[in-house]
Parts: sequence; structure tokens; C-alpha cells
Amino acid sequence: MKNYLQHHEWQIVEEGFHPDHNRISESVFSLGNGRMGQRANFEEFYSGDTHQGSYVAGVYYPDKTRVGWWKNGYPEYFAKVLNAPSWIGIWIQIGNFELDLAHCRVERFRRTLDMKRGLLLRSFIAHLPDGRTLEVQAERFCSMADGELGAISYTLKPLDFTAHFTITLPVDADVENKDSNYQEKFWDPVYHESQPGWAIVSAQTKKTFFHVCTGMEYTLHVGGESVRGRVSTNSREKYADNVVQVEVTQGAELVIHKYGAVLSSENHPKEFLVNLCRTKLANATATGYEALRKKHEAVWAKKWEECDITIEGDVAAQQGIRFNIFQLTQTYTGEDERLNIGPKGFTGEKYGGSTYWDTEAYCLPFFLSTANPKVARNLLVYRYKHLQRAIENAAKLGFTQGAALYPMVTMNGEECHNEWEITFEEIHRNGAIAYAIFDYVRYTGDDRYLPEFGLEVLIGISRFWSQRINWSADKQKYVMLGVTGPNEYENNVNNNWYTNVMAVWTLEFTQSVLDFVKQQHSIRYEEIVQKTSFREAEETARWADIRLRMYYPEDKTRGVFLQQDGFLDKELLTVNNLRPEDRPLNQKWSWDRILRSCFIKQADVLQGMYFLEDRFDLDTLKRNFDFYEPMTVHESSLSPCVHVILASRLGYQQKAYEMYLRTSRLDLDDYNNDTEDGCHITSMAGTWMSVVKGFGGMRVTDGKLSFRPYIPDRWTSYSFRLEFRNRVIRAIISRTGTQIKLESGEPLEVLVNGKIHLITA
Amino acid sequence: MKNYLQHHEWQIVEEGFHPDHNRISESVFSLGNGRMGQRANFEEFYSGDTHQGSYVAGVYYPDKTRVGWWKNGYPEYFAKVLNAPSWIGIWIQIGNFELDLAHCRVERFRRTLDMKRGLLLRSFIAHLPDGRTLEVQAERFCSMADGELGAISYTLKPLDFTAHFTITLPVDADVENKDSNYQEKFWDPVYHESQPGWAIVSAQTKKTFFHVCTGMEYTLHVGGESVRGRVSTNSREKYADNVVQVEVTQGAELVIHKYGAVLSSENHPKEFLVNLCRTKLANATATGYEALRKKHEAVWAKKWEECDITIEGDVAAQQGIRFNIFQLTQTYTGEDERLNIGPKGFTGEKYGGSTYWDTEAYCLPFFLSTANPKVARNLLVYRYKHLQRAIENAAKLGFTQGAALYPMVTMNGEECHNEWEITFEEIHRNGAIAYAIFDYVRYTGDDRYLPEFGLEVLIGISRFWSQRINWSADKQKYVMLGVTGPNEYENNVNNNWYTNVMAVWTLEFTQSVLDFVKQQHSIRYEEIVQKTSFREAEETARWADIRLRMYYPEDKTRGVFLQQDGFLDKELLTVNNLRPEDRPLNQKWSWDRILRSCFIKQADVLQGMYFLEDRFDLDTLKRNFDFYEPMTVHESSLSPCVHVILASRLGYQQKAYEMYLRTSRLDLDDYNNDTEDGCHITSMAGTWMSVVKGFGGMRVTDGKLSFRPYIPDRWTSYSFRLEFRNRVIRAIISRTGTQIKLESGEPLEVLVNGKIHLITA
Repeated sequence: MKNYLQHHEWQIVEEGFHPDHNRISESVFSLGNGRMGQRANFEEFYSGDTHQGSYVAGVYYPDKTRVGWWKNGYPEYFAKVLNAPSWIGIWIQIGNFELDLAHCRVERFRRTLDMKRGLLLRSFIAHLPDGRTLEVQAERFCSMADGELGAISYTLKPLDFTAHFTITLPVDADVENKDSNYQEKFWDPVYHESQPGWAIVSAQTKKTFFHVCTGMEYTLHVGGESVRGRVSTNSREKYADNVVQVEVTQGAELVIHKYGAVLSSENHPKEFLVNLCRTKLANATATGYEALRKKHEAVWAKKWEECDITIEGDVAAQQGIRFNIFQLTQTYTGEDERLNIGPKGFTGEKYGGSTYWDTEAYCLPFFLSTANPKVARNLLVYRYKHLQRAIENAAKLGFTQGAALYPMVTMNGEECHNEWEITFEEIHRNGAIAYAIFDYVRYTGDDRYLPEFGLEVLIGISRFWSQRINWSADKQKYVMLGVTGPNEYENNVNNNWYTNVMAVWTLEFTQSVLDFVKQQHSIRYEEIVQKTSFREAEETARWADIRLRMYYPEDKTRGVFLQQDGFLDKELLTVNNLRPEDRPLNQKWSWDRILRSCFIKQADVLQGMYFLEDRFDLDTLKRNFDFYEPMTVHESSLSPCVHVILASRLGYQQKAYEMYLRTSRLDLDDYNNDTEDGCHITSMAGTWMSVVKGFGGMRVTDGKLSFRPYIPDRWTSYSFRLEFRNRVIRAIISRTGTQIKLESGEPLEVLVNGKIHLITA
Repeated sequence: MKNYLQHHEWQIVEEGFHPDHNRISESVFSLGNGRMGQRANFEEFYSGDTHQGSYVAGVYYPDKTRVGWWKNGYPEYFAKVLNAPSWIGIWIQIGNFELDLAHCRVERFRRTLDMKRGLLLRSFIAHLPDGRTLEVQAERFCSMADGELGAISYTLKPLDFTAHFTITLPVDADVENKDSNYQEKFWDPVYHESQPGWAIVSAQTKKTFFHVCTGMEYTLHVGGESVRGRVSTNSREKYADNVVQVEVTQGAELVIHKYGAVLSSENHPKEFLVNLCRTKLANATATGYEALRKKHEAVWAKKWEECDITIEGDVAAQQGIRFNIFQLTQTYTGEDERLNIGPKGFTGEKYGGSTYWDTEAYCLPFFLSTANPKVARNLLVYRYKHLQRAIENAAKLGFTQGAALYPMVTMNGEECHNEWEITFEEIHRNGAIAYAIFDYVRYTGDDRYLPEFGLEVLIGISRFWSQRINWSADKQKYVMLGVTGPNEYENNVNNNWYTNVMAVWTLEFTQSVLDFVKQQHSIRYEEIVQKTSFREAEETARWADIRLRMYYPEDKTRGVFLQQDGFLDKELLTVNNLRPEDRPLNQKWSWDRILRSCFIKQADVLQGMYFLEDRFDLDTLKRNFDFYEPMTVHESSLSPCVHVILASRLGYQQKAYEMYLRTSRLDLDDYNNDTEDGCHITSMAGTWMSVVKGFGGMRVTDGKLSFRPYIPDRWTSYSFRLEFRNRVIRAIISRTGTQIKLESGEPLEVLVNGKIHLITA
């Protein structure tokens, strides 16, 4: 755990330069706008420890799978988020010296992420090796108003000298992915041009042939006056720049406005990219930096209005929640149904891929409550569009007749991952995808989604469960063998309780949706039956039999569900028994030792009870929580939020608060020692859930919003806003009571602590 | 399964050229002498499909581990058998044409492995592209009389033309490993020299710095007369040759004798290698080809006398057993305790490493019975010398206090393998290493081995089992969680019956050895207690408690032991249920499907019953065999031999014979479609066991040899020879009866079908 960032309500601040933590800061201070983004790399050249990273949504490269030992069924490729061409460079040469913070004495360094306005700010005074002193102020944003545009304002002031500055303004497509399997570069050159005032590089990805055109224009001002300087231009494959020489006198300010445009063939015809890029840059320059920034800030103001959570009396908690909301909002705006929420967003390229079960299990509730329902719907449609691929994926593993297994990790619907115990066995993801359909309809009331898209997906998934489950003659029950649950610290187990429960829940839900669509949308029902070759009587009869006779491991003595068969054969210890030097287990223990131990990465029995809360009484929840929580090491970023929600339900307020800090400040405090690779974007939605579903106790039951709020000891009040069925609702919880206000829309009945209230605007 | 090789008692014959099967033939016809060997590559240049491979025992390279997803505890390197410098090339140029069978019409091609004499023979008539015709006869051996020497006699006869032949005679160290993880070459140049008449190249391995010096000398004769030809010499890094021009008239024979010497720094000081190599070559040339071959043949004659098995009435079976004995004898001669038996011997480089549990479980009995006891003892001492490494290996996985886990795959005692379910969990290998000590002492009576070496190894292994086993409060028994048994078609299971049984057996055996050494070698006992910090009372008390209260899964209804917990939850099918297109499962089914299925790669419950046969009555054996055999797909080369032995014991003669053909002709008929990568050397010892322990029913019980022989239907008789406690015994089993003859040594009591006979010379 680190503690070098300052606490502040709206800002993340690094005061003083921490080169040892630079990669962490580059992750934490990342910028994005849903279409593109980049790590908080310096504009000027930096020879110190850095991970240069720029990313473009939806552009990926299928890197040839690397394995030690091939298993039949592995995918050939791992589709990876690409480190993309960069437009942010502003390289400064003063005489013989290049401005490089690794070779200067740096004073008054301050890096700020202004979350309210969506700006990355940086200022410092650099003492050059020859003793001259230079002041720098930089401000950068990726426009939320135009996802293809970004801008930098970079101000240089020589404090004690006058000199000719040589300024290189590049666009650079000669980038490589840190996690390339075979040390390959993924970009091929397409086009490059440099003219005084601008430069453009177009590059295409190998194999996938995405084109990305990256360009820059700039203006220079000295002492407030526009200057042109002496300009030379360079361009070559995958690179173009302007090099400008300009004299700056002591105490005067040289202000560089650099505009960057990034256009991809996902959104425009390839042949128009270069011209569109030039036009966009010319317009940006004409509009000017301040005006662009204002538009950008206006979008952020609106976003914050929609999804901010305020916390009074606890700056660390306030900063944590805003940081999570900020990063999540930067990563996914919900406008494009082809996109999804990558595990690192635009903050790093590790783990490649873009879509994990995280989206359905953790991110969906955030978007349901903070955005137009279309956003959540787009996330669901994304999976609908991949249904055929999921059927092919299941067929590759020997399943038949339209059974669908969604991939563990994907970009375009194809499986990317290649660890057998995960790729082939962590099939609970299918359950989360079914659950998301339920969750969406429950929250929005939009049951037209079911005939339109939902049912086909549910049939595919139910068919998979039906084939994956087998009859045990020994138990005289249905069982599910050889799975890995969300607790990835167990592999290839039999009858993972969570997976069994979610499988049978899917069969039930599918049946109810079948009934609904058949009754309410009979024509569409027949269409679906035809399209999916659905043998209604036969298939639903088997599903019903499985529902009736499924096996669930449990310990009747303790009154707890068992994570899997044989769990009680383990030595049952608690996390207290671990020595500090054993943590985190995944870095300190060999894999077999982790597997044999009772310690849990994330408690999947509790995950199941969270999803299906209505089915369990509080005593049962308590027994299971008391049994599993003490064994849980929370080495998955997705773990703590569920514990906040359940602990809150059980009145374990201290545990809930401890878990809240862990999820909300995971990256700010680098709990898991891995933020340098990028931020944990998907778990950030869990932080939002921790407040709203945890402390606020928000649920939707029978179409009604309900709350069971309390306030953590250290807070004086908190508030959050929900979009719910064409209403906007604000909840304000303070020491004196709870207010649920209707900010817009028709009057609404809500439940607070079990009592119905009608709220009106 | 392929069927292109002719059946013959003493020979393997490829009649007619099969370029599509060339890699298979290159494996099958491989030569070796325990120190070096090579695949049956052509001497002349060949542009067709080929895998060029030469190997030197004990010389390896630690290739950087390649994995998809790193698990804590994985080794950094995989020590690999090296593809080594080659001395066999004889490249023929006639005018503009290179003799290259890929570009000639080939007639009367015949490749023969003369197993009796240890010779690779090849003859053919080549029609050059311009219509000229050339006859070639080649003969090659790796001398069993001098492990550093090999020789070729290569005869060229122009049938219808007279020409100048240009003959290049290279030694070439510019080789690469087919399975290099990072497409690296593993050899660095050291020395090269070429003089008229000879050439030498010395190279060293990267990282390990083994030096290997490879040289050649040659003589030429035309029409029986020695000629020198016009000689030019070339040498460069990792390469040296002589190029000779010589005229050969129509119908005359050009005979080339090429001598190759391969010396490694494992056996000589590096600085003497080149001189020793030159001397060896000069001596070889002086001795001459025929005399060298005679010495070589004499050693083979003696080897065959020691270990031949004759089978009358079934040429395919006779050829099969001889091929197995031949390859095994070529691979390991038992003279050097630093060496072991690589899975591919000198026939290919796949699977790297040199030592698997195969050595102890399958190879040891062959060497016990066919060679001086020193050979088997050397195999045991090899593991004794690696004890410290095994303790370090266990420590890496969290075990303490001298617990030893021998590696799954090793070259120098360090673990090489990197699949968690094997590396960390296939720990039954420890049991086989303990069992080998028992097996050695049981067979040889050499109980001095126990105080000298055996006990320390047993203590280390028993300590490992003791820590790896845990108390299950639920079962009120000791259990062993998270293991992979010899049946690798199950991973990470709980309570694999075989592993549990072998673990407890080890504890028992260790206790009995402790008692023996304490009583009979008390001084040495104290030494060992000191050396191993053995806490006798405490440690043996825990071992005794485990022995008393260990859990073994079983099905009392069926009266069978259960392969592991939960086995009966599977859908219990038999191999008959599989469609031909499902086979082999490991190429056709995804890994999870294999794991979920009941199908067994090799039946480890039966393996355990084979090892500990005395503990089970025939009815129990029968019930288990009848239960497991029908589910076993034998996709491990190590599987069928155990089934021959047990089926024989149960009187299932047809099953035994079917399994015998499968093991003995595995490579000759390419059953598993993988012989092109090399032969399955270690399973060849299983073929020998199939005859001797299977059909012959040979056992050692209470120090007595016993037999329970029968004869497969298609055979008229068979015989084998055993070395046993300073005696040589021959068993001849025919339709008319069994003869057990003492060929040398003191009179001996043997049991035949349960009745004692005294045999005398």
C-alpha cells in the first residue's frame, strides 16, 4: 500500500516528483473519453522509468497465443487492446540540452488530475544541468465533447536566461505493446505527411487492418503574441513532426497549444481518414484551446450531475468514490454498442481483451442507475451480437444444438484466453450474462428487450447448462463437474455452489421468459423457435428435471452452503492465521499451495447470495458470511464491494467501511501493488455499488426502488443520484435522517426501511 | 496406425522409398551407443522432409521457460537435450547435380536396421535429373565398443557414366533445436580446423558451457585402390570440411569410409578435447572400418546374449520385442551414473529433459534383470545425488525441514516442467522413486544400499508425504488434496487412490528401513540422523498415525477402489462408446471434456495394484481390472504394459496379447501418430516387462524368483534370460511346457506355478 498522493475532494495530487512511482502515477492520472485515451505520460521526452501508452477504443490485434503446453480447444489468438500512435509529444531542446526530468533537478513538481473538469495538469521548475532554470506548466484533456480530439496547453518560461528553443511536435506510430507475445510491433505504415503547422500519420494494424489516422496541429505564442518560428518538417514511415525554432527571452512565456486528432476506420471509411483528420485539426485550431476546453468541461459538468456521489466528513472516501466514477466515465460512455469496458480502460494494456464477466456482474448496475437505459441496453446488445460466436465457441468444446458458451475474455466475441482451468471451466460467466438480462429488465422495466434480444441469448445459455450438467447415478442428483468458480483460488472442482445455483437460476429465468414471450409476443416467439430450432417440450422438460433434482453442496451442521465438493476436507483457517510475509498469496505461495488452502480470492458463495438475495433469510446470509468472510483474502479487485453490500445488510458496519476503503482507494493507494500496469476499471463500478447498494441499501424489488440506508461512522452525510424509469431521484443520508427526493419525473412510490413513501417533485 | 515396415525377426526394413514417412523412419532407424546417437538421416544432402538430429548424452541447455500465464513456483528454465554437431554428412556432387533423393527418381530403395549387429544399412539406385544412374550403398554404426566413435561405409557406383565426383565431408555444429522456446541456437563456436584428410569443430553450449568436439577422418578407395583425390579444405565458425574431387569410371566403386568422433567436456578436460579427438580419429583410421565394425558387433552379440527375448511363431511379436530391447540398449548402457534414460533417447529432442518417473517405474526392472546390478544401482544413485535439489524444490513450494520432492522432469536434479497440474501436483513420482529402492533391494538382495544411500532418500520423501497430507476434520481421516495421478486425464483431484496408497506405502517402507538400519548399521544410522536432523520419535509417530488413519476412496458396492473422490459422479461409459473420430481423445476433445469424462489415459488404480500386488487377492484385482480396463484409452505409452501383466495374472490372455502388440509395436506401427518426433524409449522397458512379468509371470517374492508362465495363442514358444543374484537363468516356455534353466551360478530354488524347484547348472 502506498500513500504518496494527497487527499482532496475533487483532485488527485502528486506533490513533488516521485520517479519511483512514475508508472503508478501514469496509470492513476490517465485521461480518456470513451473513444481514446492515454496514460499520464509527460509531453516532454523522459528517459526515466515510464510506460508510454495511448489507446483507441475498438482497435485490437489478435496476437498469436503463447502457451507452454498446448491444450486442445485453446484459441489461436489473444485479441489485445493496442498501444496506439501518440500525439502528445512536445520535445524541448535548449541549446545542447534536452528537457528531460530524469536529468534535471526538479522543483515544485505538481501533477494534478482535476476530476471535476477532466484535466491533467502538471507544473514544475527544472534546473538544467548547466544551471539554467525553466518553469513549465502543462494542461491536457481528451475531449468529452468530441471523442476524436484532444488538446494540450504547454507553457515554458525561462526564468534566468534567454535562448533559442527547438521544439519538436511529433505524431508517432512506431509504438509497441508491452505484453506482445512475440516482441512484434502490431502497426504497419499507411501514410505520413508533414507540413508547416501540422503533421499526420496513418497506420494500420497487422492482421485486423484497422486504420488509425493520428494528426496534430499547433500554435505558438510568446508573450501573448502569435509566433511561427523557424519550422522544418520531417516525416517517414509511422512518424511525422514539425521542428520549430523560436527565441524566448528571460521571463517571457512561450505557450504551445497542440491539438491531437485520432480517427479510426471503425468510424469512418479508410479512404477519408486523412482528410477528415486534417479538417478536424483545422477546426480545432480555429476554435482555439480555451473554447475546446470549455465544451469539454461542460460535458463533464453534466456527467457529474448525473453520477456524482458526495461524501461529507471523509475526504479520503470522497476522493476515492469520485476517482472511481471519473475513470469509469472516461472509459465507457455507452454511445457505441460495439464497445465494452476493458479491464484497464485507457490506463494500460495488460490483460488485453476488452470484455470480461466484470461488465455484467459489476459494471451494469452503475450504468443502469447513472445513465440513460440505452447505455445498459447497449452493453446487453453487445452480447446478443456475439451469440453466434458463443455457439461456435461451445461447439469447439464439444457442445451441440445451439448451446452457447460466452468467452472468458473477448474483443469480438471469440474467446481469447488460454488457461484451461479458466477458458474451459470458468463457465459461471454464462450465468452472469443471463443475470444481466434479468437485472436490466428488473431495473428498467423494459420487458420488450426479452423478445427482441434476451430470449435467444437465454436459450443458448440454458442449452449449455443443460448439456454441461450430468446425472450422477451415485448421488441420484444432477451434478456439474470440473469447473472453476469466481473464486479462482480453486480450479477444476466439482459442484461449485455458485455455478450450480446460477445455472439452475438461468434455467428458471429462461422458462419464465419463455412463458412471457409466448403469451405476450407470440409471433416473435414462433420466430425464435424457428430460428433456434427450439424443441420446446423436450428441452424444457429436461430443464425442469434439472431444476428439480440438482445437487447443491452444503454443510447441514454449520448451516452453510459449501463452495464445492470436498471443501470441508481442507484445513479450515482464517486470514488471521496468515503471516504478513505470506501476503498477497498469489505472489508468495506456489499455486498448488493456494489451491489446497481454504483461502479464498473472492467468496463465490457470497457472490451468489448477493445476486439472489431474495431467496435467503438473514440468518442464512449471516452464517455463510461469518463462515466465508474470515477466509477471504480479497486478492481479486472484484471481491470487496460484494462484502460491503452484504456486511451492510448484516449490520457489520465496521467490516463494510474497511472493505469500502479497500475498493475505493485500490488504485490510489496501490493496495495490490499492480497499479503501475493500469487501473482496475471494472471494479470501480463495484465501488459505486458499495455506496449505493451497500451503505444506501438500494434495491429494486417488484418494480419498486427501496433503500435501507445507514451512514458510516466517520461520515457526516452522503448523497447519490439515480436514474430510474424516467425519474431522477436523489438520496441524501445524513446523521439526522434520510431524504429521498424526486428531482424530475412522475411521482413514485419508494420503500425506505420497508415503509412505502410516495415521493413527488 | 501405419504398416509400411516389413516384419522380420532381426531387422526393421523399409522397402521402397516413403518420403511421406521419412521422419518416422528417421526415428525408428535411429542409432546410438549410450554416449551419442543420431536419427537415421541420410548421409547425402536431402531437401525433402527430414528432421536432422544428433545427440550427445549428458549435454543440455537450460532453455528459458515459455508459458502463457506464469504461476508462482514455476522453474525459470527447461533443461533440454541438445541437437548436437553432426559428423555423418557425405554430400555428393556430380557435375552440376547434387545427389538429393528429393530430386532423383529412386529405385530399389531399402533402409534396414540390422538390430543383431547394430547397423543402419541403406541402398538405392538414383536416376539423376539428366538420366544418369548411380548406385549407392551405405552402412553406419555408433560404436558400442567406443562410445565416442562412429563410422560410415559409403559406396558409390556410376552405372552408366564416368564422371568427376565432388564429395564434401563436413562436420557441422550450426544446428538448432526443433523445440527451442525462443528460436535461439544453443551452440557457440570454440574451434575449427580443417586439414587434408580430417576436420574438427569444437562448440560450446550457451549458459552451461559444455564443450563438444566433433571430428571426422576419411579414406577413399576406387576399385579397391586407395585414392586421395584433389582435396580442398574449408573451415569457419561451427563448420569444417574437406572437399574431394575424384574421377570414377563407369561400373567402378568409390568407397568412402568416414570416421566420426564426438568428445565432450563431461568426460575430458576442455583443453584436451581437440587433441584427443584427433588421436581418436587417427587410431580409428589406422584400425580401419572392418575391424571397428567387428568390435562393435561383438559388443552387440554380448548384449543380445544378455537380454534377448526370442519368440517363435510370431514374427511381428519377435520383431517388436527386439526393436524395444535394441533401442533401450542403445540409449542407456548403465556405465555412467550421471546419465539417465531420456524419453526419446537419441531419436529426437521432443520433451527435452532426460529423467521422468518412467525410469523408476518402468525401466528399472529391465536393467535389474538384464544387466549387472551396478546398472540399476547407478539409476538409484542418480536420484540420491539429486536429493539436495529435491529438498530445495520442495522448499520452493513451501515445504520445510528436509522434505524432498523430486522433479517431474529433470536433467540435473532441478525441476524443468511448467504446468501447475503436473509440476506441483503430479507428486506420485516421489512414490515411484521410493518404490525403486524397494524393488532394487528385493531383486538384488543388496541391502547395503539402504544405509549407504537409500534411507536418506526415503526420509526426505516420507517427510514430504507427511507434510502434504492433512487431517480432515470432516472425514476424521488423513487426506491428500489437489493432486494429479499417473492418469493425467484427471487434474487437481482429491485423494487419488494411487497417490494415497503409494504415500502410505512409502511411510511403511521407510519405517522398516529405519528399523533395519538402526539395528544392522547403527553407526551409519546415527550419522544419518545427524545429517538429516531426524527427530525420530516425533516424525515416526506422525507417520504411524497417518498409516493408521489414512483415507482411501472406494466403492464398497462394486468392491473397487476409486480413482479419486467424486469419480462415481461421472457418467460411467466404456471405450466402446467412443466413436473412431473421437480418438485419440487428446487430439480430438477439449481438455475440460477429457477431464469430465470417465476415460482414463493410464489406469492408476491398476498401476498401484501392480506395484503392491501382494496386498490384493485375485478377486479384488479382477473387480478393479474389470471396472477400469474398459474405460482406459491407453493414450500414455506407459499404459498397456501394466495391463499385459495384470491381464495375464487374471487369465485374460486375449486382452494381454492385444496390449502386448500395442506396446511392442507402438513405434514400428506408429500407433499414436507421433513417432516422427522420436521413439518412446522408456515405455520400451514396459514391453520387456510384458513378456517377462506378463506372459512369463516372473516375480521376486521373499528373495525367490517365481514364474507363472503361459504362452499366447499365436506363439509356439518364447524364451528370456535373467540375471539374478549372481546367476544367469533362462526360461523357455513352449507349447509342451516350461523350462527354467540355470546357465551359470550356484544352485537356486525357484517357484513355478507355486511349486518350488531347485535348479542347478
